[in-house]
Amino acid sequence: MRTLGIDIGSTTSKCVLLENGEHIIGSELLVAGIGTIGAGKIMEVVLKKAQLTLSEIDFVMATGYGRRNFEPANSELSELSCHAKGVLFKNPLVRTIIDIGGQDAKVLRINDKGILENFMMNDKCAAGTGRFLDVMANILQIPINELEKSAELAEKPAKISSTCTVFAESEVISQLASGETVGNVIAGICNSVASRVAGLAKRVGIEEEVFMSGGVAQNGGVRKALEKELKVPIQWSETSQMMGALGAAISAYEQVKKERCI
Amino acid sequence: MRTLGIDIGSTTSKCVLLENGEHIIGSELLVAGIGTIGAGKIMEVVLKKAQLTLSEIDFVMATGYGRRNFEPANSELSELSCHAKGVLFKNPLVRTIIDIGGQDAKVLRINDKGILENFMMNDKCAAGTGRFLDVMANILQIPINELEKSAELAEKPAKISSTCTVFAESEVISQLASGETVGNVIAGICNSVASRVAGLAKRVGIEEEVFMSGGVAQNGGVRKALEKELKVPIQWSETSQMMGALGAAISAYEQVKKERCI
Ligand code: SF4
Repeated sequence: MRTLGIDIGSTTSKCVLLENGEHIIGSELLVAGIGTIGAGKIMEVVLKKAQLTLSEIDFVMATGYGRRNFEPANSELSELSCHAKGVLFKNPLVRTIIDIGGQDAKVLRINDKGILENFMMNDKCAAGTGRFLDVMANILQIPINELEKSAELAEKPAKISSTCTVFAESEVISQLASGETVGNVIAGICNSVASRVAGLAKRVGIEEEVFMSGGVAQNGGVRKALEKELKVPIQWSETSQMMGALGAAISAYEQVKKERCI
Repeated sequence: MRTLGIDIGSTTSKCVLLENGEHIIGSELLVAGIGTIGAGKIMEVVLKKAQLTLSEIDFVMATGYGRRNFEPANSELSELSCHAKGVLFKNPLVRTIIDIGGQDAKVLRINDKGILENFMMNDKCAAGTGRFLDVMANILQIPINELEKSAELAEKPAKISSTCTVFAESEVISQLASGETVGNVIAGICNSVASRVAGLAKRVGIEEEVFMSGGVAQNGGVRKALEKELKVPIQWSETSQMMGALGAAISAYEQVKKERCI
């Protein structure tokens, strides 16, 4: 049986193709999110690479912000459930998921069945989200994926006292103007995101093991700052952005099993 | 007796020269705030215009963010007290002051003696402050003091759903791209500031008469939107940015009277 999970986020679309609910036989990510043709395109790519057509897929499950408007989907499921399912597939011992995306941050605490026990989210304020990093990378004229490398060069992270992205932007500009090193400033930026999200995580209540997902999980600077703040090791994976799509594909599999009484 | 009040804000310095605690014989505003030589300069200008020297001033009272580092001041006083005093001097019936500055917003409820009864402030988030307007004026490439005129051309204010300055910025850009008129967008921007500050004001509790001060009081778009939101008339004055400095000059007068047992 082949199922397909598609996660249509605010800035990216992700797709995972699963065989028998166990083997990932295709997965892709495209920087083109909700309101674009990204989702359709990425499904095409995954199918083409696997030399399959849509008619050979048993069930397509959509998730993410854009899940309701994706024509080819057989059904849709909230990103929270999909996320939890995807992460538990990778490591069944995970109990806390910290997800920092392009414009929001979520912390989920789940039990061993993947059921949500507590949850908090910030999608109102750009501070503590990927958007904060984008704004800063833009000031620094450094590609976002190079922030990590630069943060490692920090001798003493700059202290950014404003939480607000807009006020922090001015602070960073004046720190650079007064000769602070770019490395120190970037480390300060990573700390700022981490401390904001740590606040959210503490309110949810951290239980080990902890897994980080979402686009910002790729950023080692933020990850390490979060480990320090929360005093727990934080796992992640190169494919941590795919967790929602993976979870959707797993849910699709479970759905078909249920429908066919397997 | 001559007293001088100086209000050193984040982006502007204001100075008022008062005779016998009653007559304003000089007042100036300079766009150069804390950390600049603005405060010293503006005092010089006021003294020069009045053909006086510092030695002919009985007392200099400083207020505002930068009040602690102003050498020539005899004393310093919190901006809240000064603000309330300045406004009551203009109109003794005022009970609520809404002050939207360059990077903060405050709502004060005072009694007939100018004593603070309730107070709330936002200085953490750029939304609902002058900074929000600055960011938007910058996108629109419209000088900040022309926002009012443009807001008046609005037929149907655009709805900006994000409170956050950063997210609202993206919303405004995409509204403009999809053909929304600049007038409607600016009216939407004014509404956004007003609704944020109205939230603060409602928590403080509005009591009439209501006076608006701070740099943003100059902006009729925000003022009118606030009147609508709060369902009360809102007074203001061309010199509403001077209230803190005026209050400081009055406090200086009271201080001298006390010291000399007059
Ligand atoms: S604090 Fe700054 S980043 Fe957060 S909502 Fe306010 S304006 Fe946006």
